[in-house]
Amino acid sequence: MKANFKKYFMEFLGTFFLVFTVGCTMVIGSSGVIPAIAIGAVLMIMVYAGGYVSGGHYNPAVSLAVAMKGDLLWRHLIPYWIVQVLGGACAAFIVTWLVNGLIPVLPTEFNIISILIGEFLFTFALAFVVLHTATAARTMGNSYFGLAIGATVMSGIFAVGGICPAAFNPAVALGVGFLGIVTWKTVVFTIISNILGAIAAAAAFCLTSFECKE
Amino acid sequence: MKANFKKYFMEFLGTFFLVFTVGCTMVIGSSGVIPAIAIGAVLMIMVYAGGYVSGGHYNPAVSLAVAMKGDLLWRHLIPYWIVQVLGGACAAFIVTWLVNGLIPVLPTEFNIISILIGEFLFTFALAFVVLHTATAARTMGNSYFGLAIGATVMSGIFAVGGICPAAFNPAVALGVGFLGIVTWKTVVFTIISNILGAIAAAAAFCLTSFECKE
Amino acid sequence: MKANFKKYFMEFLGTFFLVFTVGCTMVIGSSGVIPAIAIGAVLMIMVYAGGYVSGGHYNPAVSLAVAMKGDLLWRHLIPYWIVQVLGGACAAFIVTWLVNGLIPVLPTEFNIISILIGEFLFTFALAFVVLHTATAARTMGNSYFGLAIGATVMSGIFAVGGICPAAFNPAVALGVGFLGIVTWKTVVFTIISNILGAIAAAAAFCLTSFECKE
Amino acid sequence: MKANFKKYFMEFLGTFFLVFTVGCTMVIGSSGVIPAIAIGAVLMIMVYAGGYVSGGHYNPAVSLAVAMKGDLLWRHLIPYWIVQVLGGACAAFIVTWLVNGLIPVLPTEFNIISILIGEFLFTFALAFVVLHTATAARTMGNSYFGLAIGATVMSGIFAVGGICPAAFNPAVALGVGFLGIVTWKTVVFTIISNILGAIAAAAAFCLTSFECKE
Repeated sequence: MKANFKKYFMEFLGTFFLVFTVGCTMVIGSSGVIPAIAIGAVLMIMVYAGGYVSGGHYNPAVSLAVAMKGDLLWRHLIPYWIVQVLGGACAAFIVTWLVNGLIPVLPTEFNIISILIGEFLFTFALAFVVLHTATAARTMGNSYFGLAIGATVMSGIFAVGGICPAAFNPAVALGVGFLGIVTWKTVVFTIISNILGAIAAAAAFCLTSFECKE
Repeated sequence: MKANFKKYFMEFLGTFFLVFTVGCTMVIGSSGVIPAIAIGAVLMIMVYAGGYVSGGHYNPAVSLAVAMKGDLLWRHLIPYWIVQVLGGACAAFIVTWLVNGLIPVLPTEFNIISILIGEFLFTFALAFVVLHTATAARTMGNSYFGLAIGATVMSGIFAVGGICPAAFNPAVALGVGFLGIVTWKTVVFTIISNILGAIAAAAAFCLTSFECKE
Repeated sequence: MKANFKKYFMEFLGTFFLVFTVGCTMVIGSSGVIPAIAIGAVLMIMVYAGGYVSGGHYNPAVSLAVAMKGDLLWRHLIPYWIVQVLGGACAAFIVTWLVNGLIPVLPTEFNIISILIGEFLFTFALAFVVLHTATAARTMGNSYFGLAIGATVMSGIFAVGGICPAAFNPAVALGVGFLGIVTWKTVVFTIISNILGAIAAAAAFCLTSFECKE
Repeated sequence: MKANFKKYFMEFLGTFFLVFTVGCTMVIGSSGVIPAIAIGAVLMIMVYAGGYVSGGHYNPAVSLAVAMKGDLLWRHLIPYWIVQVLGGACAAFIVTWLVNGLIPVLPTEFNIISILIGEFLFTFALAFVVLHTATAARTMGNSYFGLAIGATVMSGIFAVGGICPAAFNPAVALGVGFLGIVTWKTVVFTIISNILGAIAAAAAFCLTSFECKE
């Protein structure tokens, strides 16, 4: 119970800082390369800080892929999802309050096919990188897992940030929905793509890893 | 005594280079992404160079959090604070001299609530990342602690640099006060937020670490 | 056979994401520092994810250099080349489809001498860095190989991106050919330079390594 | 003799790529953050590739500091200096040839005091970081030495690039002299500052390290 609380609290904190950084860099006033670099970096630091505590997912889709691989107990999945969404919601609330509710952008609605491709491909890459660098037996003890995971989100934002929300994470998708940056319809298709990408990554891990006997 | 001198001198040097880079990139003439990247990078290199000597804090708030966690003797805390502030003051002095005392910006005064939120949250993140990556038993020997610590400051500057000084460090706050970049009132509230963030981080470390029994 | 499939599939996936990121950041609408950072980062993450599976080449020239050094069986070279080119072609196809075939740039034709110098030098650097950081006995178990390999491509794009396609990789060269970013004549000279750079790197590895007895 | 050749050739290659990247990003046409990031990255990759071969200095001032610390035999110092300067000169020659001798900038002459401060401080930081991360007994086997060394040069260029050539390296100073980017008077004071910075770093290493008994 106590150990579970530590994990849930870590997932809450990590997702809070991830969505808070998303909100600050997209709403309060950055532009150009700043959101991608800041968001990738904050994910990296929270993965390094909390990876050994909770796995450092901060992402319901990643938690699903890790559960499918067998490194997260299925009974932890729903609690992980709850605290991740709560962390993101708290962050979105504080960002909204900081700007007095005046989000200076209209919600964007992305093309559904573009969302399905962009969010699917990089959520796939993200969960695939997590499985290979942070859970695989043959890479245990490495010092690069956080860098690889953060850099995946950064390069994904650079690559497909023009055609989809570039959340690669249902908790972030809900966060940018709360913030009014994208429409709720876009949020829904983003979350669907994220879940599909994570499932495909768990399968692809099996096809590329020596751990999977299938 | 000799070993203590080595630690104090290391903390002096590290804080000197940190505040010197802050001063150069904010006063002599950079803009855009440069201050955040340069400041994060210089903190990273000094943490890597001196982490094994003094702990590589270069930050009175971080030293407080590490002392609360039990990895810095309390009798070292005040000497650490003194050399850190001295290092920052020397750097601010040289930068002022390089520009002939002509700081090309008027001191900024930030909103108190914004300072309390922005400085608190990222000083919390910084001390939390230090405790988990540079002092926790289960992550000993990793090669990522400096990268994680430097990247925390970089992403913090990107995230909340528009609403507060983004010092996350009382020695840096005093440095930008000496340089005339922010008002002394802003310096005071920044330092208060930094101290509170460090205390909260020491508590949160206990709530997320397996090292803390209570 | 099964283990071979894992390797080939990993090389396919890694090259797919590499060329997809090249295409997205050069065609859909990035500019400035974004392509170099995104492409270097995506190569880094795929090297970290799949390095222990297939070697993490994603580059026919690198596979050639590794085969010359003796760390890839010669009978794997042609299959590696095929899946790498296929991965790049699939990525180029999806990018073309995403923009409805409307590539908003005219194909660039670079000066042949510039291609020969720029592509040769940084393909040499790339294969040389791969051999020293990812295959040498004395650096086994390090955590920096992916960072070094990705950063080589990033700095190469920055250094010679103005005088050649900065592919450093025949699969990427074919990909930007398919995408219509450069002319086929430029593609041909790029591939020739890449092959020559890789051969020179394998020789230079021998001249700088303690592993090579010659 | 054979082992010596490997070391000298490695130092030649590393300095060649360092100065080639300096030349390309400062002459052929980059701007903004690109030179600092590219130069820091190319130094990092060459340190990671050749650090275990030759020490990975690529910098006469660093070689001096390492010799003073006792990790480079004094009889190797002059050969190291010769191949480093040769590597830089070859790179400057190729860059000049690539632009048909038409360097599009007039040589800059920096203020002597600014050169003495800027070049001294960051050459000090660079040699200090090299000694602590790449030669100290207590940090042996780490994976961060190349990142720390490359990031030192990057942050130095950002911090003092406006007041001095930001070479931190006599071979680079000669290279930018050959290229006509700075005046020869500036080159001379840069080299003097670099040597003084390296000597100070060797002394400061002793004052902060547990290895130095003095």
